[in-house]
Amino acid sequence: MIPLITLLTDFGERDYFVASMKGVILNINPQARIVDLSHQVTPHDVADAAYLLKSCYRYFPDGTIHVAVVDPGVGGTRRPLLVSSSRYFFIGPDNGLFTHIYEEEQGVEVRQIENRQYRLDSEGATFDGRDLFAPAAAWLTKGQPIGSFGRLVPNYERLPIAEPAWDKHVMAGRILYIDRFGNLISNLTAYHLKEVRGVTKRPEPSIRIGGITIDGLVGSYAEGSPDTPQALINSNGYVEVFLKEGHAADRLKVERGRRIELC
Amino acid sequence: MIPLITLLTDFGERDYFVASMKGVILNINPQARIVDLSHQVTPHDVADAAYLLKSCYRYFPDGTIHVAVVDPGVGGTRRPLLVSSSRYFFIGPDNGLFTHIYEEEQGVEVRQIENRQYRLDSEGATFDGRDLFAPAAAWLTKGQPIGSFGRLVPNYERLPIAEPAWDKHVMAGRILYIDRFGNLISNLTAYHLKEVRGVTKRPEPSIRIGGITIDGLVGSYAEGSPDTPQALINSNGYVEVFLKEGHAADRLKVERGRRIELC
Amino acid sequence: MIPLITLLTDFGERDYFVASMKGVILNINPQARIVDLSHQVTPHDVADAAYLLKSCYRYFPDGTIHVAVVDPGVGGTRRPLLVSSSRYFFIGPDNGLFTHIYEEEQGVEVRQIENRQYRLDSEGATFDGRDLFAPAAAWLTKGQPIGSFGRLVPNYERLPIAEPAWDKHVMAGRILYIDRFGNLISNLTAYHLKEVRGVTKRPEPSIRIGGITIDGLVGSYAEGSPDTPQALINSNGYVEVFLKEGHAADRLKVERGRRIELC
Repeated sequence: MIPLITLLTDFGERDYFVASMKGVILNINPQARIVDLSHQVTPHDVADAAYLLKSCYRYFPDGTIHVAVVDPGVGGTRRPLLVSSSRYFFIGPDNGLFTHIYEEEQGVEVRQIENRQYRLDSEGATFDGRDLFAPAAAWLTKGQPIGSFGRLVPNYERLPIAEPAWDKHVMAGRILYIDRFGNLISNLTAYHLKEVRGVTKRPEPSIRIGGITIDGLVGSYAEGSPDTPQALINSNGYVEVFLKEGHAADRLKVERGRRIELC
Repeated sequence: MIPLITLLTDFGERDYFVASMKGVILNINPQARIVDLSHQVTPHDVADAAYLLKSCYRYFPDGTIHVAVVDPGVGGTRRPLLVSSSRYFFIGPDNGLFTHIYEEEQGVEVRQIENRQYRLDSEGATFDGRDLFAPAAAWLTKGQPIGSFGRLVPNYERLPIAEPAWDKHVMAGRILYIDRFGNLISNLTAYHLKEVRGVTKRPEPSIRIGGITIDGLVGSYAEGSPDTPQALINSNGYVEVFLKEGHAADRLKVERGRRIELC
Repeated sequence: MIPLITLLTDFGERDYFVASMKGVILNINPQARIVDLSHQVTPHDVADAAYLLKSCYRYFPDGTIHVAVVDPGVGGTRRPLLVSSSRYFFIGPDNGLFTHIYEEEQGVEVRQIENRQYRLDSEGATFDGRDLFAPAAAWLTKGQPIGSFGRLVPNYERLPIAEPAWDKHVMAGRILYIDRFGNLISNLTAYHLKEVRGVTKRPEPSIRIGGITIDGLVGSYAEGSPDTPQALINSNGYVEVFLKEGHAADRLKVERGRRIELC
């Protein structure tokens, strides 16, 4: 089995932070394979990182160790965690980064990383990405049992999850993510579409966002028009508003968190 | 032999798209090695991607699988392709991405990827990078014969290729690429320089671009001056206009596609 | 032993430069493992690259080959170097990139890369990253002895290193690096803090930068406040000014090279 570690951070690719983590991992286990999830999480934005992780962790092989370090509280009292599920391991700070993992994975166990043997000694303020999380992941690939990292903890941080809900006659959701192409990804799914159809008795719902109304959904990006935003169910199962060969977020002046309505 | 896959997309490095593709590949073949060509292709710009691919694919070992996904027509009728040559494989949409490959490689065969066993099942709009192209590349590294992917197709998309040509007394070319340093890379080569010399009977041609005239070429970036744009034959064999320790594109206000003249 | 090569350049991630280097390396040694240190060095800024290298090279396994290509003099007379120390190899141009390596590593030997067998033939202006430095690194992983690359050279370029010094009653340092979060990293260390304490007889020094005075240091980023810049000893041992969940460089309008004082 290939020891596979993914890295998700808000460190960017310019500075020496990510390279330091990779060096530490390869120094402990030169056989480790490292894949970058993303290092362009909005700085200090734990919800952004949690969404990115949720969107791709499940495509990796069983046994993959996902390391996520978006950690505004580094050096404070927040605990370092090793989370295991029936398929994966997750390593990072206890600040809600793994909220979606707790919801979606089976057999979740959450441990506090306490064993100081798995830490790098360093002077100065803490860089837990390099000194704690990276070595913990590397030692895990060397076959150290998860019980040796620390105790199970019964409670851990979760971010509030925005769930769509009926608001009078509309199903109201939120934009949770805006991607490079300016596509607006909501928390509405096929389930909510069906529910709305059940009430309206119309085959296709209307979608209201940023002051416009979109009538019905299309099947793919190829069906849109460069002039008019359209909606579809995206490849992760969510209602997404896009502008063909354009940037819907700029066109509609919509930011993350904005309300989106089905009716 | 090491199974090597390169990735070229317009997905950027921030979102979960590239990581999803890597996860899918490693889930099918954990031994696969993945190298990023670039993920910063101008969104939806097939010609930009084709140029990037042309500029570096040949440096990789024989047998490398180059996956290129710049795919504004995803979900439409454009076909997914597996292209093989005497040295490499290329996987991506049939939209002209492989135009230069068809010109430059030997023994080219073009197949449509039809075998649904090499596809990932997923709901929602198509993300062919993750659900079709990545798994096709991974299954190819597992030794699946190319014939099992689908039928040979006789015709396939090619982009128009801008070739330099005489226009009255000047050899007129185009700027095809502008790199990070602001260097202006044209489609003019040593061949065109020689042809111009044959006509003008002067040892060194003049180069006209963006309203200025550059007299002759220098041998390397080190010979330029920070005040005056210079030209050289670059490391891929093309006439390139640069500004020493500066940004020629900004200085000359030149964009891709601009005319460049030799005389 | 895994043959490990790191790459540090100012090439960015968009263009075909980095991919070309990786292709060349893997073509010579498909077993090589390549890790990106950074490709976002400020263009042509050798001091910036030297600082990045200094900040992370030591975390990699013994035997790692660090390739650094920030090379405004490419094609000129500056020499290509292979530097070896008791732990690592370094390959790049002789322009001061390895200044900190010469200071910090043991058993340093500096060779000029002369052997043309380790070069790629190419027409046009030099792209030494692809044609000289990448192949040299790859051949080194294949076990070619360092003596076969070229002669020892007795003198080589060093950048001036800004050392903190007493200026009347203050210890004056410089900001050497500004990271993605806007943190201001100086060349002041715990040693200078101690020296200042010895003179002032106060337990905590004051820090002056960008028109403000910070009283004393905190222990971690978590202890700061979003309203007021704070200082700490960072994870590499340097005095760093930060703004909790903010961007100190923007707030204080401080650029690299700015004076910072302890008193």
